[in-house]
Amino acid sequence: MSQHLDIDSKPISTKDYSEAIQQLKQLFGNQLSDNITIRKQHAHTMTWLKNQPADAVLVAKDKEQVAKAVALCNEYQMPVIAFGIGSSLEGQLNAPYGGLCIDMSEMNEIIQVNNEDLTVTVQPGVTREQLNHYLRDTGLFFPIDPGANATIGGMVATRASGTNAVRYGTMKDVVLSLEVVTADGKVIKMGSRAKKSAAGYDLTRLIIGSEGTLGIVTETTLKLFGISACIGSGICHFPTVEAACEATMMTIQMCLPIARIELLDALQVKACNQYSNLNLKEMPTLFVEFHGSEAGVEEQAQIFAEIIEDCGGSDFAWGSNEEERKKLWHARHNAYPASCALRPEAKALSTDACVPISRLAECVSETAKDIQASGMIGPIVGHVGDGNFHVLLLVDINNPEEVQKAEALVSRLAKRAIDMDGTCTGEHGIGQGKQKYMQHEHGEAVLVMQAIKHALDPNNILNPGKIWPTLDNV
Amino acid sequence: MSQHLDIDSKPISTKDYSEAIQQLKQLFGNQLSDNITIRKQHAHTMTWLKNQPADAVLVAKDKEQVAKAVALCNEYQMPVIAFGIGSSLEGQLNAPYGGLCIDMSEMNEIIQVNNEDLTVTVQPGVTREQLNHYLRDTGLFFPIDPGANATIGGMVATRASGTNAVRYGTMKDVVLSLEVVTADGKVIKMGSRAKKSAAGYDLTRLIIGSEGTLGIVTETTLKLFGISACIGSGICHFPTVEAACEATMMTIQMCLPIARIELLDALQVKACNQYSNLNLKEMPTLFVEFHGSEAGVEEQAQIFAEIIEDCGGSDFAWGSNEEERKKLWHARHNAYPASCALRPEAKALSTDACVPISRLAECVSETAKDIQASGMIGPIVGHVGDGNFHVLLLVDINNPEEVQKAEALVSRLAKRAIDMDGTCTGEHGIGQGKQKYMQHEHGEAVLVMQAIKHALDPNNILNPGKIWPTLDNV
Repeated sequence: MSQHLDIDSKPISTKDYSEAIQQLKQLFGNQLSDNITIRKQHAHTMTWLKNQPADAVLVAKDKEQVAKAVALCNEYQMPVIAFGIGSSLEGQLNAPYGGLCIDMSEMNEIIQVNNEDLTVTVQPGVTREQLNHYLRDTGLFFPIDPGANATIGGMVATRASGTNAVRYGTMKDVVLSLEVVTADGKVIKMGSRAKKSAAGYDLTRLIIGSEGTLGIVTETTLKLFGISACIGSGICHFPTVEAACEATMMTIQMCLPIARIELLDALQVKACNQYSNLNLKEMPTLFVEFHGSEAGVEEQAQIFAEIIEDCGGSDFAWGSNEEERKKLWHARHNAYPASCALRPEAKALSTDACVPISRLAECVSETAKDIQASGMIGPIVGHVGDGNFHVLLLVDINNPEEVQKAEALVSRLAKRAIDMDGTCTGEHGIGQGKQKYMQHEHGEAVLVMQAIKHALDPNNILNPGKIWPTLDNV
Repeated sequence: MSQHLDIDSKPISTKDYSEAIQQLKQLFGNQLSDNITIRKQHAHTMTWLKNQPADAVLVAKDKEQVAKAVALCNEYQMPVIAFGIGSSLEGQLNAPYGGLCIDMSEMNEIIQVNNEDLTVTVQPGVTREQLNHYLRDTGLFFPIDPGANATIGGMVATRASGTNAVRYGTMKDVVLSLEVVTADGKVIKMGSRAKKSAAGYDLTRLIIGSEGTLGIVTETTLKLFGISACIGSGICHFPTVEAACEATMMTIQMCLPIARIELLDALQVKACNQYSNLNLKEMPTLFVEFHGSEAGVEEQAQIFAEIIEDCGGSDFAWGSNEEERKKLWHARHNAYPASCALRPEAKALSTDACVPISRLAECVSETAKDIQASGMIGPIVGHVGDGNFHVLLLVDINNPEEVQKAEALVSRLAKRAIDMDGTCTGEHGIGQGKQKYMQHEHGEAVLVMQAIKHALDPNNILNPGKIWPTLDNV
């Protein structure tokens, strides 16, 4: 338990990297900082997990600098952790063994939009909102939208998704190619701009979701999508979360090409009402969105209305007014701070899990009961069209009993999802927080992953202590 | 050159595996055969590439047998090659270093259809037609359709796609999880039935497209899709292949959710007319298909009609009559034998390449000119919505000059596609035939791939001599 309470402890680095840091200082001048405030800002700051700063932070200007820094880290067997904007939720940015943090946020150039191919090539520090703002006059958009305004590099690393994934896929589906700095400081291109290829191993998808443990992304080519002629947004209420899940399941089973279908339980709706100044009925609620032609959207909304009725839902209201739509989705994206505001003195523990859609109602319902039985505050919100949902537990971290209760609840959720042939995380990643479930979820496949890790990073310098616990077990 | 002429030569195996084969015989009795006819049937038989049989063929009954056989091969450092139905085009099934071929075709059980989740779990010997026949009363279908009636295991191995990929994706998109026998004979599960996950490395997609060099697939869980309420098929003609490619490009850029868009050049149409007894105008032609509601299909067809007109196309006829639709696509799937029949005494060299859609017209047009200049017979047919097309060269393999000309042409096409930021193969794979382009396409990424290969198969027993040339270079 003390691990979580010791928020401001020093890194548990056992090695002295001062010679390497000195060399980095000579190479990079005041792009390198060992100021403790800056170091702390570049480690984990989002949830209750302990902040474990690196020994120094380098603000990189280009891929050559990243390559040079990584090569030097490799020479000194010093850990290296890439930083985007700091929004990861499972401790991916911590430096439990010290080392160098490379801040990629100034590598934020949008290199090339290719309207004809619906692709864009970006540097890793570009954020998803920056990209969509840049695209605003092209008729194209980039759909992946985790709650935070994350960087594309970070989103590649954690295999991010969000509210549009049910229609447009996750990072694994929208990344065409990558440029990656490997552990030995080489700059390697993976994939091409061809939509498909059967030429050799799919390195691109191996890097996606590897949380900085196999390489550092310095360039990404993404698929873009055309903004639909018509976008309809809607909202509807249900007597129970199970009923809302049933409606979601029917929607997916009928292959309705819904663009977004998001569940908020009654507590989450209450939090959003308070935080975003809305006036929604405080009941289990689905936020939905339809993309298509005007007639197509109308048709989808009609079919969805029938599904809702079948499942006991009510008050279905939808329209294509852009202002109302933006307000709705803004509130949805603010679910995290809205929930935090339910108990401002507490720390948030945001966890997620994902199950086959047929098990969704059961998994959400059991989890809701579990939260209730625990007496904790934990709103449920989810990308339910993918079988993916989040619980945000608000925990007094000075109360060890409460901390223990929360950890036990997260653990039961992870195992519940895995036992339903699902996964302990749909989009947050493993980081430090979910290592204990890797074995249960993957069995001996963990050994295959570790063999790959060892082959590509023999000195274990790339984000050590993530996905697996220690430097030594690989 | 002699490599290609020596169709019936013995394997160039340098090792004597008779002790291992003896042991296999004891374990598996008459499931094991060393009959030369059977061995030849289980090596490459599809194109002009040399047939290189393994030392023995084991018809496996279950995953335990596969695991046992692979473990034994590993002990004896004997190559092991999995066989599905024998339809691969780049020599993936050959045994240039001898060893054991494991025939998976009797492991052809459809283990579980899950209608609620739109998933199915199958053994590797199930063919795509068998699967769709099995699904015929469920309202669901499996969309990936390479020309041949390939097995799912083989389709995983080569990252197969086909005519529906433009809408439904390729094998990389529709495989949820795998069960794989690794080089040391372990049975490993990769992935889950959850639609998305951020838990660890994406081993599933690493295996997909690895051509049997990283493991042997013993079970696959696939996504299924609902059969649309309405399916409209159509055909239209163009004055040039460039104009047909332009129309395709516009269709994709307008984000029309077209389900199939296939180019046939004039020669291919002629071949199909002769082979499938059709009466199509012998001009560059697009076969298309629209999936959706009745209104949705109507809308798509209207938009497509406008695109055709803009691009100088003509004679657009479409409808939703099932019989006519089946006849059309049956002819399309028979493009390969139809082309072969243009010159029955010749051997076929089927090659494919894939480029970003903006370069498609240019790549197809340059290739068409190249074929014409060579004086060879080489119809062009392609999944042009993905920027992917095929050339089928009909070659008298007893004429060394012609062979050389064909090889040079394929080489120019591969390099042309790569230089357009595309790939030397969109769906056939590397096998033996395209190894020489790996370096040009991937540069130093090849070293990363080889490091993974070495980590997962240290004795290089899994399909050696594929993707890379020799046993020794890994």
